[in-house]
Amino acid sequence: MAERPGEFALIEQFLKPLAKTCPGALSLADDAAVLQTSPDQDLVVTKDALVAGVHFLEREDPGVVAARALRVNLSDLAAMGASPKAYFMALALPQAIDADWLAAFTAQLASDQDTYDIALAGGDTVATPGPLIVSITAVGTVPTGQALTRKGANVGDRLFVSGMIGDAGYGLAILKGEVPDATEAQARAAIARHRYPEPRLALGEGLRGVASAAVDISDGLIADLHHICASSGVGAEIRTATIPTSAALLAQIDVDPAWRMTALSAGDDYELLFAVPPGRTTEATAAASIAGVEVTEIGMITESKDIVVLSPENEPLPIGKGGYVHF
Amino acid sequence: MAERPGEFALIEQFLKPLAKTCPGALSLADDAAVLQTSPDQDLVVTKDALVAGVHFLEREDPGVVAARALRVNLSDLAAMGASPKAYFMALALPQAIDADWLAAFTAQLASDQDTYDIALAGGDTVATPGPLIVSITAVGTVPTGQALTRKGANVGDRLFVSGMIGDAGYGLAILKGEVPDATEAQARAAIARHRYPEPRLALGEGLRGVASAAVDISDGLIADLHHICASSGVGAEIRTATIPTSAALLAQIDVDPAWRMTALSAGDDYELLFAVPPGRTTEATAAASIAGVEVTEIGMITESKDIVVLSPENEPLPIGKGGYVHF
Repeated sequence: MAERPGEFALIEQFLKPLAKTCPGALSLADDAAVLQTSPDQDLVVTKDALVAGVHFLEREDPGVVAARALRVNLSDLAAMGASPKAYFMALALPQAIDADWLAAFTAQLASDQDTYDIALAGGDTVATPGPLIVSITAVGTVPTGQALTRKGANVGDRLFVSGMIGDAGYGLAILKGEVPDATEAQARAAIARHRYPEPRLALGEGLRGVASAAVDISDGLIADLHHICASSGVGAEIRTATIPTSAALLAQIDVDPAWRMTALSAGDDYELLFAVPPGRTTEATAAASIAGVEVTEIGMITESKDIVVLSPENEPLPIGKGGYVHF
Repeated sequence: MAERPGEFALIEQFLKPLAKTCPGALSLADDAAVLQTSPDQDLVVTKDALVAGVHFLEREDPGVVAARALRVNLSDLAAMGASPKAYFMALALPQAIDADWLAAFTAQLASDQDTYDIALAGGDTVATPGPLIVSITAVGTVPTGQALTRKGANVGDRLFVSGMIGDAGYGLAILKGEVPDATEAQARAAIARHRYPEPRLALGEGLRGVASAAVDISDGLIADLHHICASSGVGAEIRTATIPTSAALLAQIDVDPAWRMTALSAGDDYELLFAVPPGRTTEATAAASIAGVEVTEIGMITESKDIVVLSPENEPLPIGKGGYVHF
């Protein structure tokens, strides 16, 4: 039996060759594909699958499963600057899923559909002897040529993030029982951030024609910054002191400074990380203000191909594989 | 625990309400969704998921899994008259899937991509402790308003099918060991029809503006005819003697006439069943000829809401639930 390749090797070796005749696939290296189907608009399509016990807890609340499954896809649309249009859902349902579960699951979807102005357009429902799998394909539109990709960041561009970074990872750690000293209020807020990510759709739309590159933070701030740098052929320098952190996580960092790395390397925040040419930062912050989202400048794009993370004392911190930061 | 609804009830009760604000969802009652994204073209999107051990044999050849997974989606595009544009694939991979399996799986996809002029545009790859699941979303285009739907058949329209009907079900029966007396040549041809369905894309494109309604035969001829009749608010009369049947299946029917029901009620043929206004049948057969596909007139649309199946002796045959025909 030939050894099973890891996900990265699988994509490089087996899937990228299948995408080479499709320019809109963006070499399978971006948050979504961009298909030209009209002279006025491009179509942005993304597909994410979530497996029970792998991407969410086996006995997770059905509303949380629904919200995460839809919102991680909407976050990919936001990272491309696309406006949501419709989604398709394949459900692989084990026998244990009953009508009560389905009622709670679809009630959350209905509520999210209202919030994010999107509707179910099709899909498939199949029985499985394995775990629950929710696979959603979300379709959005963007004016022709205006999709935000990971490619396009230039030396000197400023780096911004939306919202607060690190809460989702902190919430997951609390859920896993790894933070026995978290207060109830801290726990509640951080767990909610993990369970109900907020796709930054209005911000993504506002950044069309303003940001030079964008990504949503799903793998972790450093890892996703690496995606922008690799696609754009640049490096970056960020300052930990400027990374926006919630009061709850700050309080935790006061107790144990090792928690600071959560903000840098934990994923699932689904905030946007984007680069803006230096002359256009006012436009970017104005767009954020209209979208009702805080954005914070955390560093800039550099010529060296490295990512440098500066400590509050302006010392470069060592970064390990996968964006893990050693303090 | 509330009882689990069946697939039909699940769609009616839980999923249709999520699609009610999306006209292009066609109430989740057609082969695909039709999204208006451009003044010139509509987008046709379909999503089908296949589960190992449910939709294909647990140890099925990886090339067969790839061909079936992609082609059943392309067949949905064909049934809507759409031209394929790109597809998205989510793979839930159990540990047993190795590099050899992936090489054979993607080699078949590459070959099918050439044949059907489509490319992979994106997707997701996840690990699962359960069975292999392949979920494909296929995207096609059709000139605005010209998508073929299940709705639109009128009284007096002629009913046609493409190709031969019943071979895929016959092949599955052979694979299951239910036909001990099949000759090797019969077995080989029928099993190939089951394993490698032929999406009738060129025919579907040629029927735009000609057919009044169309569906692909995935559930069985009678069951899929019922879909057209229910959506169009009409009935139909078909003659078993006119249903095109392969030499292999005809030889089997000679041995045991009960096999005739296979042609009427087995699914997975992925041929097109379509209605054509009486004045346009010459256009339909000309379109089929250009597409290089045989089509055969098998009956007509009637005013009564029933489906009547006439025996070779012109006697109505009793039809049971799910299109099962009792001889």
